[in-house]
Amino acid sequence: MKQVVLRAALTAAPTADDFALIDAAAPSVPPDGVVAETLYLSIDPYIGARLRGRHMGEAPPRPSIDPIPAAAIVRVLDSSSPLFAPGDYAHTMHGSWSDCAALPATQLRKLDPDAAPLSAHLSALGMPGLTAWAGLTQLARVRSGDVVLVDAAAGAVGGAVGQIARITGARAIGIAGGAEKCAIVRDEYRFDACVDYRAPDWQDALDAALPAPPTIIFENVSTAMLAAGLQRAAPYARVVLCGLADHYQADAPPAQIPVGLVMMRRASLHGLVVYDFYDRWDAFVAEAGPWVRDGRLAIREDRMRGLESAPALLEKLMRGANLGKCVIDLT
Amino acid sequence: MKQVVLRAALTAAPTADDFALIDAAAPSVPPDGVVAETLYLSIDPYIGARLRGRHMGEAPPRPSIDPIPAAAIVRVLDSSSPLFAPGDYAHTMHGSWSDCAALPATQLRKLDPDAAPLSAHLSALGMPGLTAWAGLTQLARVRSGDVVLVDAAAGAVGGAVGQIARITGARAIGIAGGAEKCAIVRDEYRFDACVDYRAPDWQDALDAALPAPPTIIFENVSTAMLAAGLQRAAPYARVVLCGLADHYQADAPPAQIPVGLVMMRRASLHGLVVYDFYDRWDAFVAEAGPWVRDGRLAIREDRMRGLESAPALLEKLMRGANLGKCVIDLT
Repeated sequence: MKQVVLRAALTAAPTADDFALIDAAAPSVPPDGVVAETLYLSIDPYIGARLRGRHMGEAPPRPSIDPIPAAAIVRVLDSSSPLFAPGDYAHTMHGSWSDCAALPATQLRKLDPDAAPLSAHLSALGMPGLTAWAGLTQLARVRSGDVVLVDAAAGAVGGAVGQIARITGARAIGIAGGAEKCAIVRDEYRFDACVDYRAPDWQDALDAALPAPPTIIFENVSTAMLAAGLQRAAPYARVVLCGLADHYQADAPPAQIPVGLVMMRRASLHGLVVYDFYDRWDAFVAEAGPWVRDGRLAIREDRMRGLESAPALLEKLMRGANLGKCVIDLT
Repeated sequence: MKQVVLRAALTAAPTADDFALIDAAAPSVPPDGVVAETLYLSIDPYIGARLRGRHMGEAPPRPSIDPIPAAAIVRVLDSSSPLFAPGDYAHTMHGSWSDCAALPATQLRKLDPDAAPLSAHLSALGMPGLTAWAGLTQLARVRSGDVVLVDAAAGAVGGAVGQIARITGARAIGIAGGAEKCAIVRDEYRFDACVDYRAPDWQDALDAALPAPPTIIFENVSTAMLAAGLQRAAPYARVVLCGLADHYQADAPPAQIPVGLVMMRRASLHGLVVYDFYDRWDAFVAEAGPWVRDGRLAIREDRMRGLESAPALLEKLMRGANLGKCVIDLT
């Protein structure tokens, strides 16, 4: 079997040259587990931090030894678990950049291949969708009439935030980088508006785009972006601190939020860790599956073929050059 | 009439020498208002920032012209308002360091002199008590079983936080500076425990004092203190950002909260501005008046007599040398 590993410990944001494709011994079936082939790999923004041991305190993969971790869609080849049979499809958060893997049954969530296209379980119905749903509905308690401001709006989480906001009767204003991403946010994800933060007058454009002060800010990017949102926020705005992609990449001091602005706006800030919502994943899929099937929740994919493409796609994601959810197709 | 003004614009924390006692013309009754004599003046921590224009964007008092602002208990001498008659008692947030003042009726809240000792309306039933109640019950939604960690626990807000927490069936752990303040917190305010942050091993003492990880942190002092609390907090802890007394005094950069710790703890942070709860002040007094009368909610006073003592009492408060709520008695 093939896998992708780090050549050496990372000291900066990963580039394609930091990885090597190697051969490894084929795995055998573990007790109460499966051997499965990888169909789709998810390439996620937090991996940049994860590879340097800067995500949730988890140790980084060892160079030349551990394949890069990833969420994955797999098909069972062989099983010692009563819960899985050959041919079953499953989602796992414990996949890796390899074409085949041994996995305990406890790390698999069985998928109905008729519920949605399989790779949607990496985006709209996957961790990005669950993240958007948990932050919006469980922490910010979105209601009809809310004005939701979300950045990285062309990303999988941001795109799902806006679409779920609109499904609940809220308005969605996105922030994204570049005209092409903004067009996706407006035209494909059907946000009410999207502002290009790379434009020199983008803060004026944001003022013009907001139909009313934001009542919810869903923060995916940076504390500077959060400050821009808080300056415009309604009193008692709810803020979801989902991720800070900019800070993952930089070897900067820890991200800091100005307290004065939080108090001035009477804001409520909620730290979101999607892990805590994994036990509601099946319930989320049951709720959101129909939205995916009827097209109200759709995340564009930026897809590349073959395991050997994973490093290049991660580099593209780290540069913010991707358009849509990054997926490696191994089928 | 007499009033106290600034000698010059402040550039640092106020000391007694920054003020002057002057004579001024006696006021006349305004339309729909009163002339009232000052009975008690409240000396509050936020005044240090207020005098330098660093509180809620309000302009600082002009040197030699404007008397220093203060919450006050007054007795009406003369009235043009149908709502007030001579002899009525009232609370105002628009009082000042003067022995007599003209006030519009809209800036007065009538007091029942039998509800509680008059000066209690500056502490347990005043803005400090309302602040504690609003943060604990309206923002953090305290419930029986919560573990409430509060700093500046010997102060009027902190002391009320712990007592209201215990009235609701929660446990209260205080942090205060010095053995004398800690004794007040434990013995008079009946917290479950109090830790002296001036002791070299205070963080170990805090670990030992906590019966369980805090589920509520009521932050009155600084972001460093907040970080100490968050490191020990339960998942989904609620944080009330009430005040940052340390940052009021320092000419430091704006207070910042580390985002990583907030996300790691899945904490919810709530900015508290007590102004927003003024319309529930009478309701709060109706609820908390019985607690004051039966002794379950009692705030010690650090009282000095005479208007001319106000600058010295403010300096004492700014140095953290006060024991209890600072009140100037003009009766």
